[in-house]
Amino acid sequence: MSRKTAEARTDLLFYANPEQSADLLWLGKFAAPDPFLAVRIDGRKIAALSPLEFARGKRESAFDEVLALETLEAEALARFGSEGHPVARLVRLLAERHGAKSFAVSDDFPAGIAFDLVKHGVEILPGPATLVPERLIKTREEAERVREGNACSAAGLRAAERVLREADIGRGGVLRWNGRTLTSEVLRAEVNKACIDAGGTAVGTIVAGGDQGVDCHERGHGPLRADEFIIVDVFPRINATGYHGDMTRTFLKGKATPAQRRQYAAVREAQKLAIEAVRDGVHGTEVHAVPAGYFKSLGYETGRDAKGYFGFYHGTGHGLGLEIHEPLRMRAANAHAIRAGMVVTVEPGLYYPGQGGVRIEDVVWVTKDGCEMLSKFHYKWEIA
Amino acid sequence: MSRKTAEARTDLLFYANPEQSADLLWLGKFAAPDPFLAVRIDGRKIAALSPLEFARGKRESAFDEVLALETLEAEALARFGSEGHPVARLVRLLAERHGAKSFAVSDDFPAGIAFDLVKHGVEILPGPATLVPERLIKTREEAERVREGNACSAAGLRAAERVLREADIGRGGVLRWNGRTLTSEVLRAEVNKACIDAGGTAVGTIVAGGDQGVDCHERGHGPLRADEFIIVDVFPRINATGYHGDMTRTFLKGKATPAQRRQYAAVREAQKLAIEAVRDGVHGTEVHAVPAGYFKSLGYETGRDAKGYFGFYHGTGHGLGLEIHEPLRMRAANAHAIRAGMVVTVEPGLYYPGQGGVRIEDVVWVTKDGCEMLSKFHYKWEIA
Repeated sequence: MSRKTAEARTDLLFYANPEQSADLLWLGKFAAPDPFLAVRIDGRKIAALSPLEFARGKRESAFDEVLALETLEAEALARFGSEGHPVARLVRLLAERHGAKSFAVSDDFPAGIAFDLVKHGVEILPGPATLVPERLIKTREEAERVREGNACSAAGLRAAERVLREADIGRGGVLRWNGRTLTSEVLRAEVNKACIDAGGTAVGTIVAGGDQGVDCHERGHGPLRADEFIIVDVFPRINATGYHGDMTRTFLKGKATPAQRRQYAAVREAQKLAIEAVRDGVHGTEVHAVPAGYFKSLGYETGRDAKGYFGFYHGTGHGLGLEIHEPLRMRAANAHAIRAGMVVTVEPGLYYPGQGGVRIEDVVWVTKDGCEMLSKFHYKWEIA
Repeated sequence: MSRKTAEARTDLLFYANPEQSADLLWLGKFAAPDPFLAVRIDGRKIAALSPLEFARGKRESAFDEVLALETLEAEALARFGSEGHPVARLVRLLAERHGAKSFAVSDDFPAGIAFDLVKHGVEILPGPATLVPERLIKTREEAERVREGNACSAAGLRAAERVLREADIGRGGVLRWNGRTLTSEVLRAEVNKACIDAGGTAVGTIVAGGDQGVDCHERGHGPLRADEFIIVDVFPRINATGYHGDMTRTFLKGKATPAQRRQYAAVREAQKLAIEAVRDGVHGTEVHAVPAGYFKSLGYETGRDAKGYFGFYHGTGHGLGLEIHEPLRMRAANAHAIRAGMVVTVEPGLYYPGQGGVRIEDVVWVTKDGCEMLSKFHYKWEIA
């Protein structure tokens, strides 16, 4: 194999759980609950599967070749002996058989395997955020799968809205539902069950009221209260396809103050402006500057004090697909160029201790001249 | 720092999502949806958290020190410039500040960061299956958390049994429920919703009927049928604690054949014998040999043919806790010594194409003289 040939092709190496490696899931079209070894050498995709996955992998996956892990292990042991990392041995055998000397791997490829391969003369090149950048450009079919994900998110949001509508305002402004205190946990359970009925699995759903919503990764806990913002962020994975939805709405049970109405209106308008800014060729920093500048123009400050961050302190959006956070980022720094076919969330927010947080999140598919909405749920947020 | 001191202590380095790194979750007592940097240097636990996690981390985590990621990034940039891996820069700065020259990391520590650290003179030692082996020995409180996990699993099993009891046998033996065909997907949704109501999140629940159950990682799809084994394997994570349950029951709607009854009875008896074999000091291979030998004595063969694996082709059990598969293994090869305080599943099974699969799984807490059950659900499996 000439050096030129080695450069012309990029051989890939994975040791990952496809539920955590979107690259591997995309290439193999095969879901498994445990990590397994897979390579793409000279375009040919090969996986080594354990007894637990072997038959299903042969039947269902997109790998060109499925090897029985136990057989490969025996062969590698016979060839190299028992010294070194057991998974690296398998890679060395495959590399030798197929004439591969160098593999691109993900930045989070297991160091234990990588060190042992390097020691044995196999070059390991930790790669960029994705080894298969072509998967970031979604086909119409993939965009529709994200739309299904968002229909599942919307089912969750609908459940949240229904419960809040049915809830009463009890003593001290604490919400009550179905004869008990309405907590973040209870409301989240209803959202997640609605996602299950819509064919998805929601993990990490945020239901955060009042100041809990200001910490935008706080999932929310304890009693929910009237007259406070309640952020509901639902990002299920569709069981049948592996694609995600990701939508956020902010609700308020009771009556909003003028300041709360201004805050909500600012976020909604910022979202509209950001969506208008998304199109093929624009850079993520440019899109992010739109809502950030709009908030500033209204006098909403962003910063950090002793209590934490406030204002609009996260990015405007991220890529979405088989991963909940795909490499595409729209934010102030380390953002990416946006290209037609990418799918991205648009989710500005404003967060202030004492006032609570508002975030509104939808998902778009980037086109040459703009973008197409892949999510649908209304923006009525005050629930009497 | 003398070499002796460096050897006496083990400094640890993490760059992981604590929902995927049980070591990090156990040390930091802090759940976050994205990877973050943490070290344990000379016993002191330090994490660097993004704006999204900073305030919550300071408030809730068990880290001795929580650094603002953005501040640390600025300091590392000023110290080392922009060359190299951005996360490795942060580690180099912390190592320099605290006099650490070498870190133990998990085998799956990100290779991109590890390579860059080695290049800059920081020793990286990919470690064994867990960096904090003390977490494998469960306190009474932790065992009770696993018991809560199994109560959640049992809620799922109860839902499955209820649906199967309510189901009718339709044309061609296909089960019907609630006016529609009862599929694996429908039954799984009912199981997972019951888990949510019990405070957990179930991902990957197996509901596999007939020959689908023979592939023991096939999650199951399509219509369920009468007179076939239906394996239901439920392993939720409790939202409030992060601990898992893991239980399996096998049901049959309709009427079993004598061969099916023999197969079920063999698995149940094998499980009892295996549970009796679990105690402090025994080795995982010894425990595994008990059900394996029992099946063999009854004439049940294990092996692989063109269609895949058959018989009892997986291990007898695995450790359970913050991870669904903790390092402890009871199987023919690469098993572990079992010590008092460990929590382990006991889950023999028998799988034959054309006959289907039976698996029964419970969870025990190892004691000096035996073990204590941490799971509870009956073994009545034929549902008329």
